[in-house]
Amino acid sequence: MDNNFLDYKDAVNFNTEKFYKATLFRSDRLLLGLNCLEPGQVQKIHDHTDQDKFYFVIEGEGLFVVGEQEKVASAGMVVWAPASVPHGVTNQSQNRLVILMGIAPAP
Amino acid sequence: MDNNFLDYKDAVNFNTEKFYKATLFRSDRLLLGLNCLEPGQVQKIHDHTDQDKFYFVIEGEGLFVVGEQEKVASAGMVVWAPASVPHGVTNQSQNRLVILMGIAPAP
Repeated sequence: MDNNFLDYKDAVNFNTEKFYKATLFRSDRLLLGLNCLEPGQVQKIHDHTDQDKFYFVIEGEGLFVVGEQEKVASAGMVVWAPASVPHGVTNQSQNRLVILMGIAPAP
Repeated sequence: MDNNFLDYKDAVNFNTEKFYKATLFRSDRLLLGLNCLEPGQVQKIHDHTDQDKFYFVIEGEGLFVVGEQEKVASAGMVVWAPASVPHGVTNQSQNRLVILMGIAPAP
């Protein structure tokens, strides 16, 4: 990769069929990407056996589940989903939701 | 850790002596933290032999170096510093700079 700089806005996109995922940067150690959810879209609860994950809400808000915790997180919130802990997010709001996310190591 | 949710604003701090670093979440696989630089403060150019790193500019702007690339990145920019590539940042602006950063695996 020649360019190590990227404006997240250039990678934002939406898909009415299902929530949109983009990879921003990737190595074996770390995948960094965007999750873009229209109102009503859902990332189903799932887990990664050997990978830790974070979400950072850039725009909008979502209802996040991490293990037994369930919380609405809006722009500026960091959500941490350790390996093996089920997690997911629903855009329960009326606005688009844009999340920076990272998974280490990369899937 | 009981709480997997955190507002980055609650972790922001500044130190007039040197730039402020906070760890938000940490596992062996991933360290997620904040770098907070007053105007004029510098994170010297350095590298991590076996760790990839990203910066996400949340507030303000900074002059980032990654290898041969040097660029001003403002809020919303993602900067990727792969293992062994020298990188650093200077707050050359008149405003405070707040960066979300991640290192995988954790140092």
